[in-house]
Amino acid sequence: MSVERIPILKMGSTLLVSIQVDMHDQLALQLQDDLTDRIAATGARGVLLDISALEIVDSFIGRMLSNIAGMARVLDADTVVVGMRPAVAITLVELGLSLPGIRTAVNVEKGIDLLAARGLDDRDGNNRDVVGR
Amino acid sequence: MSVERIPILKMGSTLLVSIQVDMHDQLALQLQDDLTDRIAATGARGVLLDISALEIVDSFIGRMLSNIAGMARVLDADTVVVGMRPAVAITLVELGLSLPGIRTAVNVEKGIDLLAARGLDDRDGNNRDVVGR
Repeated sequence: MSVERIPILKMGSTLLVSIQVDMHDQLALQLQDDLTDRIAATGARGVLLDISALEIVDSFIGRMLSNIAGMARVLDADTVVVGMRPAVAITLVELGLSLPGIRTAVNVEKGIDLLAARGLDDRDGNNRDVVGR
Repeated sequence: MSVERIPILKMGSTLLVSIQVDMHDQLALQLQDDLTDRIAATGARGVLLDISALEIVDSFIGRMLSNIAGMARVLDADTVVVGMRPAVAITLVELGLSLPGIRTAVNVEKGIDLLAARGLDDRDGNNRDVVGR
């Protein structure tokens, strides 16, 4: 019963992906495919990538996160990585990985705020409830 | 880098848990502990359990879902299971498992609506945006 694809949860104009499992090549490619399809299909304006379950973010994962953010950007969606553990941040810097092009927030709620503050919810000018629909 | 605990994501007064990995005894107990702690600490009124990644829900998983719903209930939080695959529903019925005490919704958004409709957001009488804070 090992996971063959990572679920993408739609909440209003935001897509939430909680990465919990060891990312191998195939799974990373599948996630990129699924997520870009989903952004295009739903017109989502924001992507939240929760990595709170990850104890290690190596160069492979870092590149995957950057790729996803880049793909989302050309599809007009902003990406925020949330839930990074302090130990992961330390390791990233020690490895010289700077996660170019990736914005981060402490948790999902702050990530939602960050997406909202960037004017992603332009439906009614009320930026505080991107996810509340 | 296998998961040792399943992340619990707080969104307003709702806690979201996306179950993606093979649940063994230890992980199920850990999730029950973490989730009850989190409900008590945050005063959350709703729990969304996303099982869209699960291809199989056997009696062990079914019991775990029922246990979580029961524990949440005595802590004054409602539980909704979301994202069940059609094949899982078929298997559950064939196995004679009825998931007692568990409410379900097709996806996270419908689950949020279901929690909201049950009057969980009693702060301002506006039940439509439980998660939007």
